[in-house]
Parts: sequence; structure tokens; C-alpha cells
Amino acid sequence: MKFNNSPIGIFDSGLGGLTVFKEIRKILPFEDLIYFGDTARVPYGNKSKETIIKYSSEILGFLTDKGIKIAIVACNTSSSLALDYLRKISPVPVFGVIEPGAQKAVELSLNISGRKIIAVIGTSATVKSGAYSKTIKEKAGLLCGAKKAEAVNISNIDFNENLEIIEKSCPLFVPLVEEDFLNEEITKNVIKYYLASVIKEKPACLVLGCTHYPILKDFIEKEIGNSTEIIDSGVETARSVKNYLEEFGMLKSGTKYGNEIFFVSDDSERFKELGGKFLGRPIDNVYVVNFS
Amino acid sequence: MKFNNSPIGIFDSGLGGLTVFKEIRKILPFEDLIYFGDTARVPYGNKSKETIIKYSSEILGFLTDKGIKIAIVACNTSSSLALDYLRKISPVPVFGVIEPGAQKAVELSLNISGRKIIAVIGTSATVKSGAYSKTIKEKAGLLCGAKKAEAVNISNIDFNENLEIIEKSCPLFVPLVEEDFLNEEITKNVIKYYLASVIKEKPACLVLGCTHYPILKDFIEKEIGNSTEIIDSGVETARSVKNYLEEFGMLKSGTKYGNEIFFVSDDSERFKELGGKFLGRPIDNVYVVNFS
Repeated sequence: MKFNNSPIGIFDSGLGGLTVFKEIRKILPFEDLIYFGDTARVPYGNKSKETIIKYSSEILGFLTDKGIKIAIVACNTSSSLALDYLRKISPVPVFGVIEPGAQKAVELSLNISGRKIIAVIGTSATVKSGAYSKTIKEKAGLLCGAKKAEAVNISNIDFNENLEIIEKSCPLFVPLVEEDFLNEEITKNVIKYYLASVIKEKPACLVLGCTHYPILKDFIEKEIGNSTEIIDSGVETARSVKNYLEEFGMLKSGTKYGNEIFFVSDDSERFKELGGKFLGRPIDNVYVVNFS
Repeated sequence: MKFNNSPIGIFDSGLGGLTVFKEIRKILPFEDLIYFGDTARVPYGNKSKETIIKYSSEILGFLTDKGIKIAIVACNTSSSLALDYLRKISPVPVFGVIEPGAQKAVELSLNISGRKIIAVIGTSATVKSGAYSKTIKEKAGLLCGAKKAEAVNISNIDFNENLEIIEKSCPLFVPLVEEDFLNEEITKNVIKYYLASVIKEKPACLVLGCTHYPILKDFIEKEIGNSTEIIDSGVETARSVKNYLEEFGMLKSGTKYGNEIFFVSDDSERFKELGGKFLGRPIDNVYVVNFS
């Protein structure tokens, strides 16, 4: 059996990617993980494609210099806007958080007859990019092709004709999470405000298209009800990374719990304090890196 | 009479400084104005002092290269943390937004007998810096000294003993404004949530210690009531800049309406769209500048 003991690199514009880090750690306990949070330039959600590509490329360069075996773009905005570019320039495989979430949404919708409604919530930049709609449609085409070949009673055309994707930006969710929800009533009201139009459509599933949103999952679940399945992109990304490492003989050997190291571009105290809440345990090993 | 026809430079981390720009334009209609919004790295409010000094110095350098006669730091966070440094390195006078707001608060409090409570609201970084408390105390000392010399019946010691300053951070106000308030109920609830402890103290005045907050002024006024005077740092800064230019013979000559030019470090479309709301009229002449 082949192994690869190099670390996995994970990055985000700030803290949000820690929800992905948490899921990676959960199902890959022996891997060494390096996290980078671009806290000096956070958030990416309201910045241009060019700027996001520039920032993401700098971070990828930093991580590949550290000898990572794969990179995970644990940021939906960067995954939407910079992934294609990063894959072109990267010496190692690069994973985004959009594809795994989109894949799961399509899989869930396959079993539904009639209208299949997939809802996606994210930052303004993610929604504006249309990356989820595009990816879901691609996956739907591919998956239905495969299913058809396996003689499942659904055709590509039927599926795509009945597929509807609703994308909704919820720009206040990130500051709400970063401010520790303020209080339950305000959080509930903001969620209600954003999701009203989504809930009305009774979607089969709702993709949490921003790495901050899993922190709000319980609140969102209460609002949207049981008939809509909530898809956490972090969970799906972790699964797909694990499958890839297994398939290509790239898992770390042994059963020693993996090392963790965190880099930020600014203000490690705040990262430690808030990041601990994201990760569900205290964060140590935080180092500040200056890019300029 | 002496004149100086060079432009005035105004900068902020993003859009907020446009509320200051608006006030400057209102009382100095003939001046040429250059605005810089650091939209690629906005917000500053949750970043470290070192990072804010670095960003602010870069912008000051850009503006002085354009031949400005004075610079206005139209950002409370940068005024709190970077002003001393900027004044040391700048070839032209640098004005912040803290001193004029603090000065006005002290002037208003002079006429109050007994407890004099000044409330200040701002971003986490501004409040954490304690810049308003420090500046208000300095101004109070100076002003009372002056009043005493004029035989006004109030002593420096009495005044300072009865002076209480409440600083409260309201980090959700900025995203709320940038998201166009969402809706009235949520905005009202968030303001209520933050201001509850401030209102209880019945302050004589409330300083809007963030350039975004004037956009929320009507909502805040409704919540806090008539007995608390609201101080808009932008208005006070514009007044103090005008006085300075008059005193030192630095006003622009003639009565031709001044030119305006806007620079941003990212995404001029968003700046135009939202900035127009801040300024109360459409914005043209927006150019993107890349620092790196």
C-alpha cells in the first residue's frame, strides 16, 4: 500500500474555513494539517474576481512552499472565483468546497419525482458568480447519464427539465456569526428575512454555501423545517478528500494523531478567540505571516 | 489674502468616509477633493494596529503624491490607531475624525451641571483603542482650563470628576448599513440591542464614532430620544478643516465649484452603487488603483 506523509493545506479568507478543517480532522485524524486564514484581508465576499485570484494565489504559493500534498480552498468565494486559476498554477491537486456540496445536492434530488428544487445560500460574491448553479447542472448531467446507463428510470433530459436551482445571498450571516449571534431573536429574524423566499419554494435540500453558515445550522434547521435536507459543504468536502487520498494512495501512514499548525495574515489573538468557537476546542500554534 | 489651490485628500477603509466627504463638500464647495477608499482591504475595524498603520501609510503616500494640501483620515479606526504615526511621516497636515467629535462632546457637556455623561459608539477596534476616551479627557482638561481663565464658574477638577465616558462597540452596524438596512424591524432591534446599556445612562450626547453611522442617524435618534444630542464626527471634522484652511490662508481661490475624483483599491462598481447612497447623489470619476 502506498502512503504520502506530507501535510494537507487548507485555506480561507479568515475563520470560516475552520468548519471545513474540523470536518477534515474528524474523518482524517492522522493527517498533518496546515491552515491559513487571510485575516488581514478578510472578507473576500465583497471583493472582485481579480483581487480574490491574487490573494488566493499568494496563499497557495505559501502552502505549496510548506510541502503540502493537496490544497483545500475552504472558502466558497475563492472556490467560486479562483479555483480554475489555482488548478492551472498549482503543483498539487486543489479541492474546492463547491463541487462536493453540489454533488451531494444532485444525489439527493435524484430520488425525487417531479419538480426538484435545490436551494443554495452564500455570500454576495458566491451567489453572483453562479458557481453553484453551474456546478449543480454539470453534475446533474453527468450523474443522470451514469444512472441511466445503470438502467435507473430517469433520463438526463427529464431530470434537467425538472431541476430548479434557487440561489440566495445572505450577507449578514457572516457578521452575525462573527459577532456571536448577538441574541437569539435577532438571529432568528435575520434568518427568517433571508430565507422567506426560499422556504416558500419547499426545496428538497439547502446547500450551506459559505463556511460560516454551519455555525448557524441549528437556527436554519428550525426555520426551514424537516422536509428540506441541509447540506454542509464542509462535510461533503472532507468526504471527497478522504476518498481521493485513499484512491491515490496518498493517506498518511501510521495511526499517530496528526499535527496541526495555523497561519494568519493578521491579529492572531482574535483568530484564537473566535476560531476556538468555530473548531469547538482551543486553538494553539497560530503564527502571523506577512505577505508584503 | 493667501490661497492654496491644491486639492484636499480624504481617505477611508471603504465607503464610510463618504459621509465625511459629503460634509466637507457641503461647507467647502469650491475645494478640489480627492477620495481614496481601500475597498480591497476593507474593513479595518477588526484588524491589528500594525496592519492599519501599514495600509493607512500607503494611502497617505498615494495622496501626497497627488499634491494634496491636507489629508483627512475619514476613518475612525485609522484615526484611532494610525493618526500619530501618519502625522510623523506626512509632509502635509493630517486631520482625523476623533478630535473634532471629542471637542464637540466636551463643549456640549460644559453647560451641564452634575454628572456629565458622554457616550461614544464605534467599531470594536475604535472602542478597544480607547482613543475617544483619551481625547475627550484631554480636551476636557484643556477647555476647562481655558474657561476658568475666563472666570467661568467651573473648575477643571470639578469637571473631570463629574465626567463619565461610555464607549460601546456596535460591530453589526457597518454590515447593516452596507446591506441597506435589510428591513426596519431588524435595524431597530439591532440598534435597541446595542444601545440598551447606553440609553439607561441618559448621556448628554452620543458621538457617532464610525463614518457609517450617520446613515443610521434617524433610527438611532428615534431610539435614544431628544434629551441626548447626537454628534456626527463628519460634520465636526468638516468645520474644523474649514477653520484651519481659513486661519492659515489655505482656501482655494475663486468661486468655481471644486473638482472631485475617487480612487478605490478594488471593485469600483460596488463602490459606485453603494457610495451613491452614502453621498446622496451619483458618483462618477472612480478609478481602481493597485498597490502591490
